[in-house]
Amino acid sequence: MPYFDAASAAPLHPVARQALLASLDEGWADPARLYREGRRARLLLDAAREAAAEAVGCRADELVFTPSGTRAVHAGVSGALAGRRRAGNRLVVSAVEHSSVLHAAEVHAAAGGTVAEVPVDRSGAVDAGAFAAALGEGTALACLQSANHEVGTEQPVAEVAEACRGVGVPLLVDAAQSLGWGPVEGGWSLLAASAHKWGGPAGVGLLAVRKGVRFAPQGPSDERESGRAPGFENLPAIVAAAASLRAVRAEAAAEGARLRGLVDRIRARVPELVPDVEVVGDPVRRLPHLVTFSCLYVDGETLLHELDREGFSVSSGSSCTSSTLTPSHVLRAMGVLSEGNVRVSLPAGTAAEDVDRFLDVLPGVVAGVRGRLGVPAGSAAPAAAPADAPGSLVVDALGRRCPIPVIELAKVIGDVPVGGTVTVLADDEAARLDIPAWCAMRGQEYVGEEDAPEGGRAYVVRRTS
Amino acid sequence: MPYFDAASAAPLHPVARQALLASLDEGWADPARLYREGRRARLLLDAAREAAAEAVGCRADELVFTPSGTRAVHAGVSGALAGRRRAGNRLVVSAVEHSSVLHAAEVHAAAGGTVAEVPVDRSGAVDAGAFAAALGEGTALACLQSANHEVGTEQPVAEVAEACRGVGVPLLVDAAQSLGWGPVEGGWSLLAASAHKWGGPAGVGLLAVRKGVRFAPQGPSDERESGRAPGFENLPAIVAAAASLRAVRAEAAAEGARLRGLVDRIRARVPELVPDVEVVGDPVRRLPHLVTFSCLYVDGETLLHELDREGFSVSSGSSCTSSTLTPSHVLRAMGVLSEGNVRVSLPAGTAAEDVDRFLDVLPGVVAGVRGRLGVPAGSAAPAAAPADAPGSLVVDALGRRCPIPVIELAKVIGDVPVGGTVTVLADDEAARLDIPAWCAMRGQEYVGEEDAPEGGRAYVVRRTS
Repeated sequence: MPYFDAASAAPLHPVARQALLASLDEGWADPARLYREGRRARLLLDAAREAAAEAVGCRADELVFTPSGTRAVHAGVSGALAGRRRAGNRLVVSAVEHSSVLHAAEVHAAAGGTVAEVPVDRSGAVDAGAFAAALGEGTALACLQSANHEVGTEQPVAEVAEACRGVGVPLLVDAAQSLGWGPVEGGWSLLAASAHKWGGPAGVGLLAVRKGVRFAPQGPSDERESGRAPGFENLPAIVAAAASLRAVRAEAAAEGARLRGLVDRIRARVPELVPDVEVVGDPVRRLPHLVTFSCLYVDGETLLHELDREGFSVSSGSSCTSSTLTPSHVLRAMGVLSEGNVRVSLPAGTAAEDVDRFLDVLPGVVAGVRGRLGVPAGSAAPAAAPADAPGSLVVDALGRRCPIPVIELAKVIGDVPVGGTVTVLADDEAARLDIPAWCAMRGQEYVGEEDAPEGGRAYVVRRTS
Repeated sequence: MPYFDAASAAPLHPVARQALLASLDEGWADPARLYREGRRARLLLDAAREAAAEAVGCRADELVFTPSGTRAVHAGVSGALAGRRRAGNRLVVSAVEHSSVLHAAEVHAAAGGTVAEVPVDRSGAVDAGAFAAALGEGTALACLQSANHEVGTEQPVAEVAEACRGVGVPLLVDAAQSLGWGPVEGGWSLLAASAHKWGGPAGVGLLAVRKGVRFAPQGPSDERESGRAPGFENLPAIVAAAASLRAVRAEAAAEGARLRGLVDRIRARVPELVPDVEVVGDPVRRLPHLVTFSCLYVDGETLLHELDREGFSVSSGSSCTSSTLTPSHVLRAMGVLSEGNVRVSLPAGTAAEDVDRFLDVLPGVVAGVRGRLGVPAGSAAPAAAPADAPGSLVVDALGRRCPIPVIELAKVIGDVPVGGTVTVLADDEAARLDIPAWCAMRGQEYVGEEDAPEGGRAYVVRRTS
């Protein structure tokens, strides 16, 4: 049963399992105690820190273990902001950071701080120059992921780090998705990561803070982990995390190249096999194991459900798969289609046959979902409008959820002449993203949107072909 | 090799180990995902929550899992204080709470809040009436442990909860030391605990917040654990924590009675076997497995080291065993001797023979430490002073660490006549606690202390026998 959601959580690496078992017996005691069980625990903790620091590319005394990658980000952002309070209260983040960074930014803003979001291009990457330009007066901290968790696009971290260094602003890198593949290049100041993304156990994150970076841990603290991560150390899991990081690194070059080939196959074949698909994310500067695409006229939740029935576990940034019924902020920031969105992230060891079977199954699954939604077939240009066609049409999709507003638009675009307009009334959050994306994919003109008198928004599309 | 420090961390219960292993395979995926691995993880998480809630005595939707007991306390205190901001900013805690509670209180005070500490008696217990009286105008939250982690004394939680309820103040109970032995009685509002104290794995705490308690989680949050504990759930450890809590509860009555007998043996025999010992903590209203005593004229660190050489792992609240060189705040609040302090906390399954061997070994170890420090032998009354003895003596112990100031005092008390005084000059923090405690144990009069012109403090003792 192929599991293709390594970017959420990777199955436990055999080395992690082995190390965890061994340290359940050796590493349960308090490493702060002086008796033999405590000393043994301390040795394990020190060795794990050395190993993790080597993999990160920092000194052991710069690295602490946290209960999760999320907590590492929270502690890193709040500690760096507080440490740089005198410099100002401006926080610069990319628009496609992980939610843990954005949640930390929200807390900063709620406390009166300023947050500047650097936009991304359609591939999901920030422009290093634009990022540098955002490092305005009073910038206390900048945050940039090493690679995006939803679309796999690598960010220009080294260039941004250099720009940050030039103006004396520390850069925090969220390396959660990439650390298993290799160290983060460039002169970053803080780095956060999460063990269960590289095949380590849940319950372990890591936070590196370079010497010389002003850092003031926030909230209650204790003597553990240099005062940066309070609470009893989760030692067996920490040992397993460090051991598995070494192990995946040893395999990273070969396995990365192999998975990159499998992902290339998906990137190439999906648009050939499935009509009206947009593969998103940078095709070259990307994580080796991750690919994301969106399918027009498809309900993401149903698609995931059908793929699950076929034995494939994938995730989605479609609005209907989120509890808030809004599309992923990453897809939104990129301005790409969000409906029928599928993220495939291959765990190490994924068999090529499983990828092939996925490519076999996908077209039928998508066609089935589209069929049940009554989608107009094919991606051919719309038929010529009848001679007596009205110059404009209004489609009322108020109260209808993604992908219905776009399907309704596709159904009637052939009913207006070239030059005519279709106005879609919709209150679904995804329409704002997906109607312009549909226009880009189908070569029609997106005119704009405005508040609709009926409630919701009116999206205007002009037929151009 | 007997490990007698269960109050720091208990070795993993076999059921915890078994559950952890099983859920490493079944519970590594993201429980928020809809595919089969995610659904399986969700089922495990839900079942663990049900089991833990039943053991706590709350509803499943009132309980969240946190990365540690410390983090449960921090989240509970900050969330309850923020939720009750309108009621006021006064926080009431006992003087002998765990450091996690006191650290949270420090953060509250640093942010402008008020913190009131309720004192304890010599047994370590708060008086319920005094606690109730401290619930003054504007009290947002009260915190009381179920039982003390250093001396084992149970607190009158049910009575205090009733008093809190009477004035509409929520009570947070830190049940870290007692939850494995049974649910906390009484109408508490919030409860925190830590799995590795009951034989569960590290990396799991739990926080229960009763319905109706105003609660506003602080810091960045996400959708996990009702927004009260951000970050990917440490599911295998959570499953192991819940399973082992059920298991230790099933054994609690019988094992508690057995360990209580062993602790009674230590409580009775230590003062018979070792001269100048003070057994501290309530002899009856106490945890079944924990006993603490202090030995006059003994260096706690050396004592622990010697016991470790004999194969016994215990902890200590002596100043010389803390990184801050101050005696434990618990012993200080109780006003009992802190030098030569030993906490014995027996893990489930401790063999009676190991306790007997401890009692065999202890007298020689203590005598050895005392011998090396040149301690006056025996606890007999001091000799009569020579006829020409001065009416007062000054002992300069400035720069000398515990237990030297007390040893110097004991050496010269026989050199002044009954009615004469000895003044000890000392700058060691422990002297403030241990010189009065010595007076109480040896029937001499403690006159008081004042700043010494030489620096440090001058402690005045009058010879009465």
